Amino acid sequence: MTPTITVFERSPDRGRGLARDMRVRWALEEVGQPYEVRLVSFGAMKEPAHRALHPFGQIPTYEEGDLVLFESGAIVFHIAERHAGRLLPDDANARARAITWMFAALNTVEPPILDLQTTRFLEGDKTWFAQRLPMVEDRIRDRLGELSGRLGDADWLDGAFSAGDLMMVAVLLRLKASGILDEYPNLSAYVARGTVRPAYKRAFDAQLAVFTGKPLTG
Amino acid sequence: MTPTITVFERSPDRGRGLARDMRVRWALEEVGQPYEVRLVSFGAMKEPAHRALHPFGQIPTYEEGDLVLFESGAIVFHIAERHAGRLLPDDANARARAITWMFAALNTVEPPILDLQTTRFLEGDKTWFAQRLPMVEDRIRDRLGELSGRLGDADWLDGAFSAGDLMMVAVLLRLKASGILDEYPNLSAYVARGTVRPAYKRAFDAQLAVFTGKPLTG
Repeated sequence: MTPTITVFERSPDRGRGLARDMRVRWALEEVGQPYEVRLVSFGAMKEPAHRALHPFGQIPTYEEGDLVLFESGAIVFHIAERHAGRLLPDDANARARAITWMFAALNTVEPPILDLQTTRFLEGDKTWFAQRLPMVEDRIRDRLGELSGRLGDADWLDGAFSAGDLMMVAVLLRLKASGILDEYPNLSAYVARGTVRPAYKRAFDAQLAVFTGKPLTG
Repeated sequence: MTPTITVFERSPDRGRGLARDMRVRWALEEVGQPYEVRLVSFGAMKEPAHRALHPFGQIPTYEEGDLVLFESGAIVFHIAERHAGRLLPDDANARARAITWMFAALNTVEPPILDLQTTRFLEGDKTWFAQRLPMVEDRIRDRLGELSGRLGDADWLDGAFSAGDLMMVAVLLRLKASGILDEYPNLSAYVARGTVRPAYKRAFDAQLAVFTGKPLTG
């Protein structure tokens, strides 16, 4: 059964691949699962029809027969479970550790990064902006320093590439424009290793094609 | 094999059950899994020995033979998987939806709540505090309004009590002192339903006993 995901009709990141559908597209490409896409406008996202799929009125959602899911973490996990051995290791302990990195990406590393985006977007015109921004950035540095220390010179966070790495790379990509990621060479290289994966590139091109309106060929 | 978790030697919440070990204790009590506790001081938490278990230098961690996990979401999920049918439904679709609520609690509902705590703790002495606080609180209200709408008059978020409810109740509890939760009667009732569960009470008493130094009897 071909799943359908929802994505921004017009992504606020202008096709830079930072919206949360990118994580789901990437996971689908990694496991070789074809999928359908339904575009949703900002207005429609907050209407009852979409909220029936996603109570928080966001993208992406995932529909597969009777099953409706939201939250990119849950969707990527579902895809990983459906395709054994591709994004989660078979070994029970290694699997549990890969899942730990998924939660770490979403609950420990992403919140301060989102705070930076929120600060820029909603507080850029406030009197306190210039004074508060470095505080927010330093909270990100605390996390990145710790993550950098754990990664060391390994290619991935725990053995082979997993859904945990997919999620962590996707989260760290949100920092690229800030320059903060460049302060941690091993994390920059880690993100680069993620984005040169063929599955990432296919997913990136597909989301960009939605923004440019130019359908993919070939 | 009895797992060991780490908890604050002296919890900053003074035993109110808001530290993240509470979620793990609650899950362990729900499935009837005995566990050991190791206390960690603030200083030791940032030392290499603890960071080997938890790269971000926090609690809780979970050790079970060779397996070491961190992130309360990952630990609760692991406990739920190890004890089939207790915190995750057997039906595949219902299970995927329960997992979705775990991620929603941690990645969508908790970040603005944490932002409120961070704001109070780190920016309480700043000139902008009084002006910025209502903005942070309103971001929480956006999420709670949506969650309240989805819950409606149901007891739990999707059928029977699950790890998704456990995590959501634990996250919402962090708001209790703010009064914001009281603005949403169905969410207040939902949290109350969670905290009267015998497993919650056992977990709460156990974490409180660490803080008061009075061992549990009975």
